[in-house]
Amino acid sequence: MTNSREQILLTTRDLIENQGFQATGLNEIVRESGAPKGSIYYYFPEGKEEIVAEAVRIAGLHMTEHIRSHLESVEDAAEAIQSFLADLAKHIEETGFHAGGPITIVASESATTSERINLACQEVYSGLHEAFAAKLRSNGIEAERAASLAWTINSTIEGAVILSRTFHTVNPLLEASQQLTSLIRYCQ
Amino acid sequence: MTNSREQILLTTRDLIENQGFQATGLNEIVRESGAPKGSIYYYFPEGKEEIVAEAVRIAGLHMTEHIRSHLESVEDAAEAIQSFLADLAKHIEETGFHAGGPITIVASESATTSERINLACQEVYSGLHEAFAAKLRSNGIEAERAASLAWTINSTIEGAVILSRTFHTVNPLLEASQQLTSLIRYCQ
Repeated sequence: MTNSREQILLTTRDLIENQGFQATGLNEIVRESGAPKGSIYYYFPEGKEEIVAEAVRIAGLHMTEHIRSHLESVEDAAEAIQSFLADLAKHIEETGFHAGGPITIVASESATTSERINLACQEVYSGLHEAFAAKLRSNGIEAERAASLAWTINSTIEGAVILSRTFHTVNPLLEASQQLTSLIRYCQ
Repeated sequence: MTNSREQILLTTRDLIENQGFQATGLNEIVRESGAPKGSIYYYFPEGKEEIVAEAVRIAGLHMTEHIRSHLESVEDAAEAIQSFLADLAKHIEETGFHAGGPITIVASESATTSERINLACQEVYSGLHEAFAAKLRSNGIEAERAASLAWTINSTIEGAVILSRTFHTVNPLLEASQQLTSLIRYCQ
């Protein structure tokens, strides 16, 4: 990956986190990334949909890797998720409630409007789901139950980030952390 | 409320559900609502922020009323939330996964960019929270515990709608329904 290509994708990732892809124009991506205008057509001949889908994938890889390393660092699944959520809450606070849900808006926008971007969002959420489910299984929770619970962990975190950003307090995320801990404990 | 004013707000509500407010222009609102262009400046002299904040409130009132009437129709809190989520799942399926989270995108966009719209989103989520908390209290759950659990119910439903729309299946919502039932049962 060259620097220009990477810079275009990282800039796009940051723009779509806060304004979605419909409000993000190619000119804005060029301006904010500082990449030569020609390079955007060179690296992404298929245009904005291609750039956004790749930016979603990059955001997802970064997020999944971060979650996996957190979950691996603590043996107990409930404590591991608590530790990850405490870290996520810190990150959201540090950005002044500006960040925390890199693909939330794009997933909602693309659900029925762009198959290409929608598929990239599905990949990201599937990756997160598998990270949580694997951790639950490693704690002896039976596969089907782990899969079910992992969906709810995914949903709850996604929603709690939106509420935390909206109310400018991480309390919804910390409440979610407590309730998810209870759910995991009942399964263990 | 006159018909023109209402039509402008309902059109805006539908547009922002799927594309947020940053991608929604005044011209698009005029075109889609069929309202005379002058009426938009007459009813909303403060412009797009005013229209969007009002549209968010209308979406919220409708949603809160719908949830309250569902929760009132079933005595047991866990069963009542199951019944509401089954209904929400049906609605999302019937719209071809196009609808279901009327303020999700706007809440994420406005968190740190528009105080006026952000406050409208806070009002909506607070209304939903109180609807869930009141139902839990009516089932004998102590106030502080009910408040905590109601935040997580709010977060989980918000996130599960995003995942259901993204994967074009209501399974994440049905999984959430099961897990929330367990959480409520443990409190009762």
